[in-house]
Order: sequence, then C-alpha cells, then structure tokens
Amino acid sequence: MYIGIDIGGTSSKLGLFENDNLLTTWQIKMTATTPSELVSQLLNSIKEKTNNITGIGVVIPGFIKNDYIALSPNLHYLNNINLREYFEKEIDCPIRIINDANGHAFGEARYKGLDNIMFITLGTGVGGGFVYNHEILEGFSGAFMEIGHMHVDDKYNFHCGCGNIGCLETLASQKGIYNLIKYYKNTYNTSLTSEYTIKDVFDLAKINDELCLIVVDEFTKYLGLALANAATLLNPETIIIGGGISNAGYFLLDKIKKQFTNYANNVIKNTNIILASLGNNAGIYGAYYLIKDGNN
Amino acid sequence: MYIGIDIGGTSSKLGLFENDNLLTTWQIKMTATTPSELVSQLLNSIKEKTNNITGIGVVIPGFIKNDYIALSPNLHYLNNINLREYFEKEIDCPIRIINDANGHAFGEARYKGLDNIMFITLGTGVGGGFVYNHEILEGFSGAFMEIGHMHVDDKYNFHCGCGNIGCLETLASQKGIYNLIKYYKNTYNTSLTSEYTIKDVFDLAKINDELCLIVVDEFTKYLGLALANAATLLNPETIIIGGGISNAGYFLLDKIKKQFTNYANNVIKNTNIILASLGNNAGIYGAYYLIKDGNN
Repeated sequence: MYIGIDIGGTSSKLGLFENDNLLTTWQIKMTATTPSELVSQLLNSIKEKTNNITGIGVVIPGFIKNDYIALSPNLHYLNNINLREYFEKEIDCPIRIINDANGHAFGEARYKGLDNIMFITLGTGVGGGFVYNHEILEGFSGAFMEIGHMHVDDKYNFHCGCGNIGCLETLASQKGIYNLIKYYKNTYNTSLTSEYTIKDVFDLAKINDELCLIVVDEFTKYLGLALANAATLLNPETIIIGGGISNAGYFLLDKIKKQFTNYANNVIKNTNIILASLGNNAGIYGAYYLIKDGNN
Repeated sequence: MYIGIDIGGTSSKLGLFENDNLLTTWQIKMTATTPSELVSQLLNSIKEKTNNITGIGVVIPGFIKNDYIALSPNLHYLNNINLREYFEKEIDCPIRIINDANGHAFGEARYKGLDNIMFITLGTGVGGGFVYNHEILEGFSGAFMEIGHMHVDDKYNFHCGCGNIGCLETLASQKGIYNLIKYYKNTYNTSLTSEYTIKDVFDLAKINDELCLIVVDEFTKYLGLALANAATLLNPETIIIGGGISNAGYFLLDKIKKQFTNYANNVIKNTNIILASLGNNAGIYGAYYLIKDGNN
C-alpha cells in the first residue's frame, strides 16, 4: 500500500492508498521535537494500520527541493535536513518529500488528469503550486510559485507576515478579509456581527450586504490581477482554486473569472479557471501520486 | 558544423559554429512568402558557406511549442505550421525551432554556464524567457514568460499593442520611454531635443537631466516591480537583463536592483541580477545550444 502524509504544525493527516483508492485517513498530533522522533512517530502510526508499505509520500510547509527542507516556518527542527534520508534509516521503500502547496497542486492535477496547471490555495494565507508537463516545479531554492507574496497593492499598505507590504496574502486570504473588514467597517452598512466567520462574509456578500460585498470585490480584484499576471508568465492550461475559502464556490469563482479576464492578455484570457476537488485531502493525494508515479 | 538562425521580420541572422566557437555570422533579407520558400532561402544561403551541416537551430518571434508555430505576428505565412518538418523535407539533420526570446534566454544561460535563469529583453517591446534546470519552458500554448504583458500600472493607462492597458511593455521598453517622455515633457526641464534616441535619454539621466531622470526612474520602478513579482513565482537563481536598452549598463542595472529589492520578499531578495553578454548574437547562440545540447 502507498502512504500519503500531510504534515501540519499541530497535527498531521495520513492516508492509505491501494489501487488508486483512498482506503482510510487518520490524524496524529505533532509531538516530535527532532526529525528522528517525527519519522518514528509516523512509521509507528502507519504500522498500526498496515505492514505492507510500498512507498511513502510526504508534504510539508516550507522551502523544499529534492527532499531537502531549507526552511519550515512552523517546524523548526526540520530546517536544513533531508527528511527522506531520515525515513530511509528506518524503512526500505521509496520516499519523497515536497512542499505542501506543491503537493496540493500535484494532487489536484493528477486527480483531475491535467498535466499543466497553476494552483492557488486560499486559506489563512495564500500558497501556490505549478505542474508543468506532468511535473511539479520546485524552483532554484524550493520557492516556486510563492504567489501570496506577489506585490499587488499600493492602496491599503497592509503589513504581511513576510515583512513586506502590499503582498497578495494581505488581501486574498483569511487575514486579508480581516484586514479589509477592519478597513471598511465604519464606511459601509452591514449585518455582520463582531464574531464573524469567513463563511459569514461570503454568505452576506451573496445577499448584497454592503460591507461584505465591497470586501469580497476587493479580495477578488487583487486575486484576479495576481492570477492574470501569474498566467501571463506561467501559461498554464488550467488554474485551480483551492483552500478553505474556495468553499465559497461559484459565487467566488465567477467573480475571480471576471477580474481575471479584465487583466489578462488575449493569449491567456481563455485559460480555464476551476474549483479544487479534494478539499482537505489534497495533500495526502499529492503525496500519494508523487510516490506512486514519481515527479515526471 | 552547427547553424544558428535568428529569424526577424525584415532580415535574419545566421551563425556558423564549430567546437563551441562562432566562426562567422551573416544576414539575409526576408523575401520568402511561404514556409518552403523560407527554408530554401536559408538552406541555399548556408550551403554557400558550408556543406558540412551537423544540425540547425532556429529562433523566431511568436508562440511556439515543440517546433510548432501557433502564431508569428510579423511572419503570418508561418502561422499554424511545424517549421521543423519543412526543413526535414530538404535536409537530413537534427532541427529545432523555438521562440526568439526563449532562444535569447537559452543562449545567455548556456554561454554563462547557468542552469536556472529568468531572462528579460528590453527593446522595442519587452520579452522574456525562463530556463529551469537546464531546460527552456515553452508553456502550455507556447506563451511562457510573456512578462511584457504583466499588468503593472494603474496610473498612466498607456495602451499596449496587445489591446490591454497598463502592461509592463507600455513603460519598460522603447515604446515605454516614448510614452513617458510625452507624458512628462511639459512638466520637467530637459536638454533633450525633439529628435532623441533612447541612448540620449539614458545619457542625460546620468547627468541628472530632470525629465530624463524621472522617465528612467519610472521605467525602472515598474521593471523592478515586474521582475520581483516574476521572481516570486519563478524562483530563478539569476535574472539576466538583455535587449538594446540594456546597453545603458550599470547605471540602469543599479536602478533595477534597487527597485527589485524594494518589492522582493526575503526569499528572492538576493537573486543575482546581471547584464546579458551576447548582444545581438544571443539568438544565434541560443539556436546553436538548442540543437547542439538539446533542450534538457
């Protein structure tokens, strides 16, 4: 059986695959403090489910190239190590490690049978991945497709976690929605209460709540701009929109398409833009496809 | 011997290579009106120099993928054909066809011994190419790295040849300099005469001519922004600046670096930015390396 692992800051998700079917998923808490502990914890958990392990794919947040983790912002004990080599000390099977957004991109691409896609994930922040001719591109230093840190805004000047101002992530993410609500809340009428969720904002925008509509329109304007500029460079066949915020569905997708078309040049204007399919399982699927088919 | 050919709208440049040395170059006028005529014209011209032909590489403006020309804006008779196949009817040797800016990028990369570069050419317009792990990326429809058509400006709203407004090409090119001079000529003092060249603009900016300095500063501001955003996506090792305008040299390069650093996130802030080396020979070198080493 193939194992797909999606490592997060506080918990990790594991999936067991056989004959292209996801048989079961489970989660474990992240208590390790060294790479060896992490590998033992994961392998012990897997062996409780099966001893028939064909290969293991792993996706992790951070700058990763050729299985080497240069920097993992939330798991500092993984910085500057080749995690594949730690696995290989404990188990004799193929292992691959990639960045989580790249993994999500790869999972969505393979699941949909697409070979050339640009993927963006809209969640707490904004991440991205790019699959070119059936292959994930990792970049020179494992930082390909850091679309959340494209500079797109000189109006709001919201501060980004990266230290810059004006990054896409300061507008087209959960943080971005908080920023925009705060910015406009005294200017526009709204039914939004002080304890709101991101879903509330989109639900109210759908019924033309003044504040929520302006926020969603600004969100999609900068997102459409960034996607158009990214497609101008990367020339993908299809753009896939994922992450928690993509649950806003076709209401969001239609607005993104409109803004994209507004900024896109003629060659890329007709690029397909679609919603992701795998939800929270994108990471384990990506990890699975990576180890099953290799990265090309 | 290897032949590198750089096809232009009015003339084409050919180069003869042996043992990695460029032995001779020559130009021919473009009089062909069909693909077959073009191939005959080129082969006849080559055979006047040598009959010992090991391989032929060709670079052409247009959207090109796997030797297939989907669109060549200045040579319409080449639209929707596989030009390699036309050559193969007439000569039995390896042939490869790629986009000219991609060819320039490949030429500069190989000449400098670099495997991961982003290339931008600043001339009449703005073009680009990207070499990833020793390979030119052509994109899904032959339109990878169309950096000249990134939307970067909402202030000037200059019209671009592509039909959009606000493209990088409306600011960071020869056309862009004309646009900016026209826009600011009644606002700032200048020694620029009405019959100016691009070189005049940079030469006067170097000695602090008010108008020329503001124009060069705006030119480099938008160029720095576009390069930072492009590097955020493509994560190259090195950015190479080529094209006729790059003759402005380190004065231009220093300004680009300053603006790039201003917009770049931490991961890419230290990306090398250097000037191109091959000048007008970049195309024939790219064509030569392409056919000699293949595209990977």
